[in-house]
Amino acid sequence: MTIRALVWNENIHETTQPEIRAIYPEGIHGAIAQGLTELLGDEVEVATATLADPEHGLTAEVLAATDVLLWWGHIGHDRVDDEVVARVQEAVLGGMGLLVLHSGHFSKIFTRLLGTTCSLSWRNAGEREIVWTTSPGHPIAAGVEQPFVIDQQETYGEHFDIPEPESQVFISSFEGGEVFRSGVTFTRGRGRIFYFSPGDQEYPVYFHPQVRRVLANGVRWAAPASDVRAAPAVSNVTRRDWSRADDGALEGAPA
Amino acid sequence: MTIRALVWNENIHETTQPEIRAIYPEGIHGAIAQGLTELLGDEVEVATATLADPEHGLTAEVLAATDVLLWWGHIGHDRVDDEVVARVQEAVLGGMGLLVLHSGHFSKIFTRLLGTTCSLSWRNAGEREIVWTTSPGHPIAAGVEQPFVIDQQETYGEHFDIPEPESQVFISSFEGGEVFRSGVTFTRGRGRIFYFSPGDQEYPVYFHPQVRRVLANGVRWAAPASDVRAAPAVSNVTRRDWSRADDGALEGAPA
Amino acid sequence: MTIRALVWNENIHETTQPEIRAIYPEGIHGAIAQGLTELLGDEVEVATATLADPEHGLTAEVLAATDVLLWWGHIGHDRVDDEVVARVQEAVLGGMGLLVLHSGHFSKIFTRLLGTTCSLSWRNAGEREIVWTTSPGHPIAAGVEQPFVIDQQETYGEHFDIPEPESQVFISSFEGGEVFRSGVTFTRGRGRIFYFSPGDQEYPVYFHPQVRRVLANGVRWAAPASDVRAAPAVSNVTRRDWSRADDGALEGAPA
Amino acid sequence: MTIRALVWNENIHETTQPEIRAIYPEGIHGAIAQGLTELLGDEVEVATATLADPEHGLTAEVLAATDVLLWWGHIGHDRVDDEVVARVQEAVLGGMGLLVLHSGHFSKIFTRLLGTTCSLSWRNAGEREIVWTTSPGHPIAAGVEQPFVIDQQETYGEHFDIPEPESQVFISSFEGGEVFRSGVTFTRGRGRIFYFSPGDQEYPVYFHPQVRRVLANGVRWAAPASDVRAAPAVSNVTRRDWSRADDGALEGAPA
Repeated sequence: MTIRALVWNENIHETTQPEIRAIYPEGIHGAIAQGLTELLGDEVEVATATLADPEHGLTAEVLAATDVLLWWGHIGHDRVDDEVVARVQEAVLGGMGLLVLHSGHFSKIFTRLLGTTCSLSWRNAGEREIVWTTSPGHPIAAGVEQPFVIDQQETYGEHFDIPEPESQVFISSFEGGEVFRSGVTFTRGRGRIFYFSPGDQEYPVYFHPQVRRVLANGVRWAAPASDVRAAPAVSNVTRRDWSRADDGALEGAPA
Repeated sequence: MTIRALVWNENIHETTQPEIRAIYPEGIHGAIAQGLTELLGDEVEVATATLADPEHGLTAEVLAATDVLLWWGHIGHDRVDDEVVARVQEAVLGGMGLLVLHSGHFSKIFTRLLGTTCSLSWRNAGEREIVWTTSPGHPIAAGVEQPFVIDQQETYGEHFDIPEPESQVFISSFEGGEVFRSGVTFTRGRGRIFYFSPGDQEYPVYFHPQVRRVLANGVRWAAPASDVRAAPAVSNVTRRDWSRADDGALEGAPA
Repeated sequence: MTIRALVWNENIHETTQPEIRAIYPEGIHGAIAQGLTELLGDEVEVATATLADPEHGLTAEVLAATDVLLWWGHIGHDRVDDEVVARVQEAVLGGMGLLVLHSGHFSKIFTRLLGTTCSLSWRNAGEREIVWTTSPGHPIAAGVEQPFVIDQQETYGEHFDIPEPESQVFISSFEGGEVFRSGVTFTRGRGRIFYFSPGDQEYPVYFHPQVRRVLANGVRWAAPASDVRAAPAVSNVTRRDWSRADDGALEGAPA
Repeated sequence: MTIRALVWNENIHETTQPEIRAIYPEGIHGAIAQGLTELLGDEVEVATATLADPEHGLTAEVLAATDVLLWWGHIGHDRVDDEVVARVQEAVLGGMGLLVLHSGHFSKIFTRLLGTTCSLSWRNAGEREIVWTTSPGHPIAAGVEQPFVIDQQETYGEHFDIPEPESQVFISSFEGGEVFRSGVTFTRGRGRIFYFSPGDQEYPVYFHPQVRRVLANGVRWAAPASDVRAAPAVSNVTRRDWSRADDGALEGAPA
């Protein structure tokens, strides 16, 4: 079954700063989409959407037809409409996978789903990042070099204010001595969430073959295993007779 | 060090329904406060607050002087001011413990901190609940009978839409065949959270000695271990020289 | 890629008790193998092995060619050779998936991998088990009815002495009021482990369509995502120059 | 209630290598014991035991009177008697806390309780370790500086082959670019386990005030909350009538 991936990018740096556009001529979303297509081939159908699109390109119809959403945002977090965020949250709870990338840690959708500040320490000094796999059997780590090096990156450091992850997949060290939980997973409702920090507008990180491998693995992992798409909902249930083959609802039973 | 516990209750049923008032003459908050005092003695100072209080009794000053907040709400969730909820969330992230009780699963504060719908299935039919300990070494389970029985309770059933708990402490079965993860813990920011489902306005559950034992244990467990009270915050850090005894900030280093 | 599944069964009850043989004419392993083939078709190649086979049918060659091992044992746990157990443990740590079934909770391989007693409470009285999904987005729960009923089963109850699972997928209630964490996952080394309790020699549980769905999902989930098969091992590493494209080992650097 | 801590050390380096004895004149156990006493005062009673003691100083009587055991071993892992290891495992499952230190990652007791190889990468080159807190609200992190620096240490690096920890408390970076999950917690049976990697015979790490703070916090955290001391055990339970005030065992009910 083809995985329908949607790469969302605020697309502000690339359209307003020529030096960023030079690094990502097709936008960050374009670079990511290209990487997914290159590595996953027929396994995936990749679309893109940006902040400037009507409803940010995230209508109910689009979300219903998306298996995994990738999210890149930075200086435009506040410009994302709350109603769209609520819709994305509902889609994730209903089973859509979500990959949150780099500065997306401060996006409305990520902080809402995690319930914490998602704050961290940072420094943009083009320092070297080394990404270590801490869970080599995790599907997201399949085929990823141990470790891999990103020559220049923004430095992210602990404390990263997130709930205890379900799986701790990658931890990075930085030239200046910082460490960061750079690859972590969560589940919310029916949806599987992967946060991956490598990736910044000022460095060509999304062309890095290992980063591309991680994102492709992440899309595979986060894709829903079932066709059911419905956020969990409250139900007032009638007492049942479990020995009956039908639903066993007891007539006149209190609900 | 004395633990400063604050029992918050919407206090609507007790003030509008005489039959509920008959069960909880001092309010649900009164019954809970009494139980904590009875079991923890000098170890705790217990205060109460309700929805009707100015700012719901949850001013910044009050929260700053609270180690553990207990939350009971049901039909008044929507009447809790968003600003107060944000303040409570900030306090939890900053280290205040939080016990969310029974129908509080749908409170604004709980769903915000967890990021999920916190929905469940339910039926109010006065059925028997059996509470089983699944983590007998957990401090919250200390001295709790295995299992203990609540003769009449509202039935809560799975699926309970919460993130995977950090510790799964209690699971309940109900007369009608339902199961429910009735005692679970989470951490958000610096704050420790315990959700415990037994407890309903229509049944005298908060007078049950085992329930009281669990709540007392929960207050002990959720009390902050450190005096620091500050929600995690982003910081732009200068590169440091780690061999220096001072903070090692490198002059002219990029931040 | 085809998943190579191996269903291991001690095969004692079926060969010594005609009444059990009547329930499982092809053995429990036969019933399970049939269910996997039926549901997974070309996706899987299923083999079986039993205690009576030389080296219990678990030679190094066999394990190296197995993606997921299913384990059913009960009265023959002690007859499983320690050397074979060590070999299976090594295979799991190296990436082979493992499904441990029912009374396999007390198998040498399970208790070794978990480090706990894996004890529980039990009663064999043909009582009804209701299996509730607690993680509806988990791949193992895909397509599984919420809940499903097993008319007659051995009763297993908490406390089940296992480490906190990575994912809590199913919880069962039993007619007598017991609850049990009936479907739970773990990772050890590179290997993914799923324990599933429904299934007993005295009841035709492995013919139940929902149980078969769970086992098929479990096999898919536990299959390794990578071709690498090697248990983690200690390494004494030379300091590296991370800016070099080769492995960067520093000559004369301390190891 | 006073916490009864027992510091166990193989005590081989200190008794055979004068240069190590110079660093730890009272043995590593002596340095650790001194630190606990200094920081916890009356809250703790500290004893020590070593490999050379009869039964390694770990008789059933001693273990029964120990609340938290600290374990330091390195070149003598194989000389620890299997029977004693089984006894310690039983004690941990029964509720005794356990702190495993540094090279104790390869001890029999730790690998048995975790079920994995506990392997890692290492290099002894006196490199600088920076210890970052990743869970600032965890009791073990209370009062610990963020980060703290150990000027010279053995380097430990990922992949560290452990099960996903319950709480990820500290992560270290090393001068050579390695990262390591240096402070992690687990529960096994009723017992709480904390692994902490800083500490080596060649460096005076156990005199470091921050390391001492962590160990003191760890002892407090791992101390059992209940007086019950019994490893979980299997039980064959009779069906009960839950409405009865006594144990409700049904006469003639199947067990």
